[in-house]
Amino acid sequence: MKQALRILRQLTLVAGFILAPALPASAADPLPSWNNTTPKKTIIAFVEKVTKQGSTDFVPVPERIATFDNDGTLWSEKPVPFQLIFAFDRVKALEPQHPEWKTQEPFASLLKGDMQGVAAAGEKGILDIMVATHTGMTTDEFTKEVQAWIATAKDPKSGRLYTEMVFQPMLELLAYLRGNGFKTFIVSGGGVEFMRPWTERVYGIPPEQVVGSAGKLKLEMSDGKPVLLKLPEVDLIDDKEGKPVGIQSRIGRRPIAAFGNSDGDLQMLEWTMAGSGARFALFVHHDDAKREFAYDRLDKMQQFSKGWDEAVIKGWTVVSMKDDWKIIYPPAR
Amino acid sequence: MKQALRILRQLTLVAGFILAPALPASAADPLPSWNNTTPKKTIIAFVEKVTKQGSTDFVPVPERIATFDNDGTLWSEKPVPFQLIFAFDRVKALEPQHPEWKTQEPFASLLKGDMQGVAAAGEKGILDIMVATHTGMTTDEFTKEVQAWIATAKDPKSGRLYTEMVFQPMLELLAYLRGNGFKTFIVSGGGVEFMRPWTERVYGIPPEQVVGSAGKLKLEMSDGKPVLLKLPEVDLIDDKEGKPVGIQSRIGRRPIAAFGNSDGDLQMLEWTMAGSGARFALFVHHDDAKREFAYDRLDKMQQFSKGWDEAVIKGWTVVSMKDDWKIIYPPAR
Repeated sequence: MKQALRILRQLTLVAGFILAPALPASAADPLPSWNNTTPKKTIIAFVEKVTKQGSTDFVPVPERIATFDNDGTLWSEKPVPFQLIFAFDRVKALEPQHPEWKTQEPFASLLKGDMQGVAAAGEKGILDIMVATHTGMTTDEFTKEVQAWIATAKDPKSGRLYTEMVFQPMLELLAYLRGNGFKTFIVSGGGVEFMRPWTERVYGIPPEQVVGSAGKLKLEMSDGKPVLLKLPEVDLIDDKEGKPVGIQSRIGRRPIAAFGNSDGDLQMLEWTMAGSGARFALFVHHDDAKREFAYDRLDKMQQFSKGWDEAVIKGWTVVSMKDDWKIIYPPAR
Repeated sequence: MKQALRILRQLTLVAGFILAPALPASAADPLPSWNNTTPKKTIIAFVEKVTKQGSTDFVPVPERIATFDNDGTLWSEKPVPFQLIFAFDRVKALEPQHPEWKTQEPFASLLKGDMQGVAAAGEKGILDIMVATHTGMTTDEFTKEVQAWIATAKDPKSGRLYTEMVFQPMLELLAYLRGNGFKTFIVSGGGVEFMRPWTERVYGIPPEQVVGSAGKLKLEMSDGKPVLLKLPEVDLIDDKEGKPVGIQSRIGRRPIAAFGNSDGDLQMLEWTMAGSGARFALFVHHDDAKREFAYDRLDKMQQFSKGWDEAVIKGWTVVSMKDDWKIIYPPAR
């Protein structure tokens, strides 16, 4: 047996030698879209120390949990989060079944293309749109709607599919972490049923590693088959204080690394950093009006202010999209 | 590159050939504690067809989700579910801090060892005991209590640790499925925070693959650090209709195989079988009074009646612990 193992080890070395020259350049640089600035160096230093056997900072593979916010951290979230555009598109698609919407706000304004009218309806108006487009159907039906939309809907300004507005440097970071034994999770304020149909294909994150906001579900029988009905009642708001709750209730292990971009992620980063041993926290700062968007302290929807202050005080990593990233989106295919 | 791959493939074949004779006998029989009866044959036939490339029943690795009930399916649940014994032991440990329990039912009866008095308090009494022992502390504090208890508490009859009252044939089944690319999950009516501290060590199932009943959590600051407080409010009852809800909300993918032992698992098995493609459903029937326990249609706590009828009608697998399993528990160490 011992001899067999030695031969196997030798064969593996030979095989590695044969394959090595054929490997892409990225094997040498795991984060090629990151400039050689502090964030990249800090990330690599962290990964190297927690994966180094015998190091005092070593973390066993099962404990290598990394959680990522989605909107603004893995893909863009401006001018409005893409799930809201999905909801608006669903209202338009459902119009024939809802003649009452012609006179009912915020639907009437939305159907006329009057976004100021929609905005005037405030949070209550947005909630009405979400309930009308995200509840009352089965989970399977909703998944099909998301799949159809995400495969075709494009951002009018860039002309890209929304799934092409993901951040190339973050895709590399996800792959780099997974290549080092990390299990990558999404922990997002976005709807869990909206994200799961495409996160595996786009980010390599399977549905069971996606935590998000959720409505209650109810098991019913339909034509002799069980279905799960999406109810208009909140189960989890996976934002701010809800993020550690989502992490504990769905993952049950404290992450050792967490990634966000706004004050809505602050509690997740605090929860992550409050554990023992080596830990890592990073905010993506949207400061690149030319290539993406620039917003932070004064933004009404995705404010980045308290989190920024705390990151500076505590020495967490803050990524400048402008200075630290070579490109924002994946190259057009 | 192509040539390198061909050489690598050849080397791998050579290595496999060298190692093959040294592999343990279990490689030939992945389920050595199962008798060669129908359940074992049915399990192996299912796994072989869904893992066979090119077969019409082939299921890609990411879709190979298998869910297991815990109490009565992976470990014993008699005379009462072990989590209840944990709760009783906690009441005794907490007695000094609760002088009022001396006169307050069901605590007074429990502390006197009068189990009939506890039973007389009914479901409300059990709920009071659960609230008193499972809520009001942080998740970290509760985890430590579970870890201390599970490491030492023993079943008085068998003298075994509760974690040694797991079913050896099911441990083999878990390993066999994982060896074939399945991701194994627990979906149990038991408390998620009670199971997670030990399922990885005992079953090889990490915390993030454990779904269970749960109370609500609340983020608070304690000495400048965030903690999650366990509240006396229900978040999820992961039993019966709650099991498909737990699967969808926590896993987000329909299992292709599900394993249970009582009517509380029926909806999980129905949900699993209602998907398309090859699927597998199995009930463990406790019919072995000599080596474990015998209970089914007339049992008040863990009835197995509706599920049994449906399994027979639909041709699902029903395991007789007496006839299909060579041993029940792992050999004593």
